[in-house]
Amino acid sequence: MRLATLRVRGETRAARLDGDEYVLLANPDVGALLATGPQWRQDAAQQAGERLPVIDAVYAPVVPHPNKIICLGLNYATHIAEMGRDTPQYPTLFAKYDASLIGAYDSITMPTVSDKVDWEAELAFVVGRPARHVPKAEALGYVAGYTVANDVTIRDYQRRTREFLSGKTFEATTPVGPVLVTADEFGDAEPDLEIRCEVDGEVMQRSRTSDLLFGIADIVSYISDIITLLPGDLVLTGTPGGVGDGRDPKVYLKHGQTLRTVIEGLGETSNVCLPEKTV
Amino acid sequence: MRLATLRVRGETRAARLDGDEYVLLANPDVGALLATGPQWRQDAAQQAGERLPVIDAVYAPVVPHPNKIICLGLNYATHIAEMGRDTPQYPTLFAKYDASLIGAYDSITMPTVSDKVDWEAELAFVVGRPARHVPKAEALGYVAGYTVANDVTIRDYQRRTREFLSGKTFEATTPVGPVLVTADEFGDAEPDLEIRCEVDGEVMQRSRTSDLLFGIADIVSYISDIITLLPGDLVLTGTPGGVGDGRDPKVYLKHGQTLRTVIEGLGETSNVCLPEKTV
Repeated sequence: MRLATLRVRGETRAARLDGDEYVLLANPDVGALLATGPQWRQDAAQQAGERLPVIDAVYAPVVPHPNKIICLGLNYATHIAEMGRDTPQYPTLFAKYDASLIGAYDSITMPTVSDKVDWEAELAFVVGRPARHVPKAEALGYVAGYTVANDVTIRDYQRRTREFLSGKTFEATTPVGPVLVTADEFGDAEPDLEIRCEVDGEVMQRSRTSDLLFGIADIVSYISDIITLLPGDLVLTGTPGGVGDGRDPKVYLKHGQTLRTVIEGLGETSNVCLPEKTV
Repeated sequence: MRLATLRVRGETRAARLDGDEYVLLANPDVGALLATGPQWRQDAAQQAGERLPVIDAVYAPVVPHPNKIICLGLNYATHIAEMGRDTPQYPTLFAKYDASLIGAYDSITMPTVSDKVDWEAELAFVVGRPARHVPKAEALGYVAGYTVANDVTIRDYQRRTREFLSGKTFEATTPVGPVLVTADEFGDAEPDLEIRCEVDGEVMQRSRTSDLLFGIADIVSYISDIITLLPGDLVLTGTPGGVGDGRDPKVYLKHGQTLRTVIEGLGETSNVCLPEKTV
């Protein structure tokens, strides 16, 4: 099943893909659907509602207001090498805030205070039920599904201090979507999918999600010992090699360029880099 | 004016202190009150409602569900020295998630996976209106008020990777409260207050909030260039020297100990360290 959060008449609505149409659900977004409880999957599959052709769909972030957005750093060997870091023993976790999220085809807001804007194509997953002290062997059962994200990073802010956060949470920079592909579509196993990032059509990153150093089950289990994961929580699993900052010479996104992030079987996000609207 | 979020009959309610009583407001918590818009201060001052003796008050975190919890690291010279870091040129920002927050007198949940639990007494402030690209000279006008917090930190998790987050956001570890003292009580200037931390009555940290390296206006202005601050956002401003991990030998909190955090004019939090309830 494929679920989206669509913008409809000035508000958002969860929706289920049905052929070349979306069926609008009663829930305001996919996060709210997941928060209704363990019957969300059956509920989403069975709800009837207004239909909208896919071609008319306007996508919000697939989960617009997660309680938590948790990101993994340094989770592909190729990216660890290009950033000159050591292979970590534990998952490197950092946060974003929800105002950094954008829909699958929204524009990326280029900051007024930096021109060091870089790409990081990532597989993301969304939590389906509360997870606390979950053993690794059971952890995949807590995943609602998977989606495409790009952890767009402002490199100079990332490096200004020893904490990544300020470079990772700029307003309206992180595409997430277009759809949540529910975990059952992968037989509830860890998806092994090609992930690719293009800038104006040029392939910059290409890898497979099976190259993750810490896999989905590792991540869920590890975080759940720290804090309770909640339905709708969004986790970005890290980026493979090929970021602009790891190149010689370094390359950054320019105004007007299009950033495209594709994960086999999940779809794509495609986002034009535009200047911040300042009133 | 002093505002609190109280637990009343199984839910939370915002409340205004009036002598030795609280007046319960219509809003479910102080964050929801602030989100109603610029008239929140007048509204809170004028609402009539059920009264509750202060002695019967049960405190939730003063803002239980902020859109953002933003923390400053390395913001007092004494703490920078004891942690062996360089003086930062820019504010060091990291996040917490709301499930880490506890009320002023709640117990601190000691993790099952670590015994390296340390204290960090901090002045916190809450944002009063949306702040985006705010110059420093205007920044204090965006602060709703001030409160007491302790950025209780799981040191081994903090150091497992290069990112602080995992050591900073353990479930039910961060007291915030008891009240929000509105900014007008300080003449809308940066408060210069004694801050103190005690473990079982022994003073571990003692400093003044005027020793902050980056002050309140610096912090608001800096963050607002990255992302829009929203009403109810909670910012912890950093801790002075005297943490357990900076001592020789190192000292950590033990089960049964009481952590008390006092800021002159704002009140205190007092929290017993208890083992996690595992069912």
